[in-house]
Amino acid sequence: MDYQKILEDIYQEILPYSKDGKQADYIPALAKVNPDQFGMCLETVTGEIFTHKQADTRFSIQSITKVFTLAMCLSIKGEALWKRVGKEPSGTAFNSLVQLEVEKGIPRNPFINAGAIVLSDILISELENPEEEFLSFVRALCGNDEIDYNMEVALSEREKGYLNAAIANMLKYHGTIDNDIERVLMFYFKMCSVEMSCRELAKASLAFTNHSPFEYAGYKLSKSRIKRLNAVMQTCGFYDEAGEFSYLVGLPGKSGVGGGIIAVYPHRYSVAVWSPRLNSKGNSVMGMKALELLTTYTEESIF
Amino acid sequence: MDYQKILEDIYQEILPYSKDGKQADYIPALAKVNPDQFGMCLETVTGEIFTHKQADTRFSIQSITKVFTLAMCLSIKGEALWKRVGKEPSGTAFNSLVQLEVEKGIPRNPFINAGAIVLSDILISELENPEEEFLSFVRALCGNDEIDYNMEVALSEREKGYLNAAIANMLKYHGTIDNDIERVLMFYFKMCSVEMSCRELAKASLAFTNHSPFEYAGYKLSKSRIKRLNAVMQTCGFYDEAGEFSYLVGLPGKSGVGGGIIAVYPHRYSVAVWSPRLNSKGNSVMGMKALELLTTYTEESIF
Amino acid sequence: MDYQKILEDIYQEILPYSKDGKQADYIPALAKVNPDQFGMCLETVTGEIFTHKQADTRFSIQSITKVFTLAMCLSIKGEALWKRVGKEPSGTAFNSLVQLEVEKGIPRNPFINAGAIVLSDILISELENPEEEFLSFVRALCGNDEIDYNMEVALSEREKGYLNAAIANMLKYHGTIDNDIERVLMFYFKMCSVEMSCRELAKASLAFTNHSPFEYAGYKLSKSRIKRLNAVMQTCGFYDEAGEFSYLVGLPGKSGVGGGIIAVYPHRYSVAVWSPRLNSKGNSVMGMKALELLTTYTEESIF
Amino acid sequence: MDYQKILEDIYQEILPYSKDGKQADYIPALAKVNPDQFGMCLETVTGEIFTHKQADTRFSIQSITKVFTLAMCLSIKGEALWKRVGKEPSGTAFNSLVQLEVEKGIPRNPFINAGAIVLSDILISELENPEEEFLSFVRALCGNDEIDYNMEVALSEREKGYLNAAIANMLKYHGTIDNDIERVLMFYFKMCSVEMSCRELAKASLAFTNHSPFEYAGYKLSKSRIKRLNAVMQTCGFYDEAGEFSYLVGLPGKSGVGGGIIAVYPHRYSVAVWSPRLNSKGNSVMGMKALELLTTYTEESIF
Repeated sequence: MDYQKILEDIYQEILPYSKDGKQADYIPALAKVNPDQFGMCLETVTGEIFTHKQADTRFSIQSITKVFTLAMCLSIKGEALWKRVGKEPSGTAFNSLVQLEVEKGIPRNPFINAGAIVLSDILISELENPEEEFLSFVRALCGNDEIDYNMEVALSEREKGYLNAAIANMLKYHGTIDNDIERVLMFYFKMCSVEMSCRELAKASLAFTNHSPFEYAGYKLSKSRIKRLNAVMQTCGFYDEAGEFSYLVGLPGKSGVGGGIIAVYPHRYSVAVWSPRLNSKGNSVMGMKALELLTTYTEESIF
Repeated sequence: MDYQKILEDIYQEILPYSKDGKQADYIPALAKVNPDQFGMCLETVTGEIFTHKQADTRFSIQSITKVFTLAMCLSIKGEALWKRVGKEPSGTAFNSLVQLEVEKGIPRNPFINAGAIVLSDILISELENPEEEFLSFVRALCGNDEIDYNMEVALSEREKGYLNAAIANMLKYHGTIDNDIERVLMFYFKMCSVEMSCRELAKASLAFTNHSPFEYAGYKLSKSRIKRLNAVMQTCGFYDEAGEFSYLVGLPGKSGVGGGIIAVYPHRYSVAVWSPRLNSKGNSVMGMKALELLTTYTEESIF
Repeated sequence: MDYQKILEDIYQEILPYSKDGKQADYIPALAKVNPDQFGMCLETVTGEIFTHKQADTRFSIQSITKVFTLAMCLSIKGEALWKRVGKEPSGTAFNSLVQLEVEKGIPRNPFINAGAIVLSDILISELENPEEEFLSFVRALCGNDEIDYNMEVALSEREKGYLNAAIANMLKYHGTIDNDIERVLMFYFKMCSVEMSCRELAKASLAFTNHSPFEYAGYKLSKSRIKRLNAVMQTCGFYDEAGEFSYLVGLPGKSGVGGGIIAVYPHRYSVAVWSPRLNSKGNSVMGMKALELLTTYTEESIF
Repeated sequence: MDYQKILEDIYQEILPYSKDGKQADYIPALAKVNPDQFGMCLETVTGEIFTHKQADTRFSIQSITKVFTLAMCLSIKGEALWKRVGKEPSGTAFNSLVQLEVEKGIPRNPFINAGAIVLSDILISELENPEEEFLSFVRALCGNDEIDYNMEVALSEREKGYLNAAIANMLKYHGTIDNDIERVLMFYFKMCSVEMSCRELAKASLAFTNHSPFEYAGYKLSKSRIKRLNAVMQTCGFYDEAGEFSYLVGLPGKSGVGGGIIAVYPHRYSVAVWSPRLNSKGNSVMGMKALELLTTYTEESIF
């Protein structure tokens, strides 16, 4: 399979969409990013790496971070984790409070904001230095010690994070989080503020292809648990567009409001794509199209 | 892989759950089935067939039929189908009307009742003899011309089908169905009333493993479309337990209130399992456990 | 108080709104009514009657009928009625199914469609000839034996009544109605199809001002029960505009999609107004304005 | 009318319910109140005052305060107030966030928590010293300069006020409040913490009977506006028990979680009753019964 050519062909094919959508602008740090950028990187389980365009430009990974948070929590808590958070698709927007009220504070899954906030709380309770530990884990995943939080982004998110603060307060009301609300929110926003390039994200995602034992910075996951984590990505990774992504792309994946998307083809490859302009559901326009074409051109998917 | 031994081991392992759950009893025909039955059949793409226990006993396939209905509709309408029905997980029970009201009569996906009723309407509009055509298609899928509707079950469902009638009326109000409500409901209930054995269901499901060109009774689907149909099964096949099934089993699948479940491992095998006792979500207790153990023992899944 | 002059002044004041809004057109019989009509009648407890414009033109009273239905049911069942239907404002549109699903088939109040359908069911169960009895009661209320159902309207409503049929099926599913769905719906639509003039409606409403013992066609209500019926009108009579009507007018009242509105000033007067053009909530534009001006000009209201 | 005897008879009649219900215990200051207390005071527009039992014991007025807040806001903003908050009954619990999400941050009415938080925000924006001004207004209403905030209660509420903080954050997200969230919440909780006796509350409520021009501490309301304020109390004063209170009592009123209830009979009298044990909707058990008997014994109500 000539992945390099495929990446280049994909880019040509999606160029007409390069001005569609609108980048996130709710905080200055995201608003000032040049929206006319695109990067892509695919890494196979045999170690081959293919890139196109700005694959080495770092961007805010935002909700993609939730995959790493979930991996750490699963490693620490095992199946007991699911007492604190569900694993069903929500069928609603990523920031909805309606379900949370109806379901008494148990978030539907770890990939909506409410679920990730509960996971932040768990890491704070379980770890002595959660900020350091999380960074070590992500650095180990992508083999790069430069990866770091962007505190300007994190603080800016906190300042404007009224809806997440509403969610955290509601979780606290229902007793679903144990620690101080501000502490939990700041850690959550820090994890979202991590900056990585497509190359680094593809490397980090490769760990989830289940091609070799999973152990990074001391955090282990069995083959069976990686399989299950991918299943959750498949059903819940794209909020109320999860079905659409599954239908068009056919791979487990996770998107972020910074315009990045990762996807995993178990036992074969991982892929990361980035372009800041988002569709109405908050997913990268060019990123979605690029991944749809990838599984169409390669005729490879899990289904 | 010694599938025969695996099927036998699975059965031993799940015996302790044989009295858990409660069979559907909302119509006499389902209530009178002996609940203490179990059957399983796995068929590989190479044509090997493995069965255990009552794999040849026919039962009411109920909602499993929706996979066949969707396949026919996709073959006839192509992607235009998705103007009439969504493909997102609903996050709610199979018979909820709430979403339907909020979303102005467009059902979330083809596997909730509202979606399948819309598909019934489409087949009635598109085909001269929808009842015959549907039967021909299912008979071709499993290579058995004995397969038939159970009119006692269908009429009994109609008599007690107040909630489905509520759904059909709401769809009609929103202009989502074109034909007479009674006509649409009767066809919907007939399709659900089809009776098949695990052996027959496994054979029919094998068509969805994408191992060879799909063409049955004149209805064709491309490899890409089969892939997409499986994606919809993966995200929407188990109502508000879709995430759980995806997590535990890791295969696209569909359940029915008669106690049957089918699952598809693309390019490898199909499997059907049946046991009438249901959990609180309406899925077969022993069936769910059997499929979870199958992917655990074989260490095979799409993820 | 010179009510005649007030009625005339009101009419001059609201003339600028005479082309605002849109009449109901979901059935031919309502669509063909000349929308540029207006009538008003006020009757005092001392028997004085004041009218303006088309106060003697009959129109379809539609949901106003629910006041009469409730009065009959309260007379027959007493407080036991409230086991079958609530008395809380719904906060939603008159035809919503959402609450009905969440609250397991018990309608919020007798003035939303679901509630009135339950009341139809009760009258069918309790009376030998519900159609005759209802007509006798309404005829007695307004002292006019010409009052009758308009069967063209009733049949036309049934034909297009998908949403009400959805509601009735859902009620049946939850066991909230006992009789055959078609029987219940037809009686419901018949009661809505009654035609009356403003003069006749004002006369009929005078019975609810509590100025003298309530007994019509054998149906009796105590002073305390009339008081309570008015309280339900006050909080639930205008669907999701109940608060607005209470705020602007300050009297218990009930509107119908035919453009009629009745209001009751206990111990003083009743009033009926009619104009077919409706606002977005389904209430008569000129009718609402006329009643707001009435309590403003007279400086009389219950508050 | 011998109101003194009526008050005494009522007390005898409701004694059997004196152990029903449970006082609010979510903050220590409310939990430590002796639940076995009862007080009642009725004041007529002619200045006669009737009391029974602990009518002079002060308690936390809690949500009753929202009537005073609304009066101040109406006086300052006039009808423009309704751009910021609705006036429809919510049909839901006092602290629900569901509606707020669906309706984009505009609270249904000023008597649910979300609405009162918006009103707090308005007073902070409009007044130089909102805390002082509010106190002056309430002191003027009841003619007693001792009335004050209970800061222990206010701080304690803030500490446990996760749900109200969630609401405030959601309002801020939707741009419905202008000031700092903490500032708004603290003022809200302070207004709720005011302590008054039944005698003082009856006096303060008398201003809303519309028997004389309304002007207190410089805040004026026209007769028409008082009428409208009473209409809002009638439809929205008791959360999801508004219909029940209207039905049983038939007067505009407002309850608080401290066990107090006020009610207004326009042009006749005001009444305040207090007993800490609450029913499942958060309204005083004995208080509700006492007011129901009051309008039954006197055969007086607005309907």
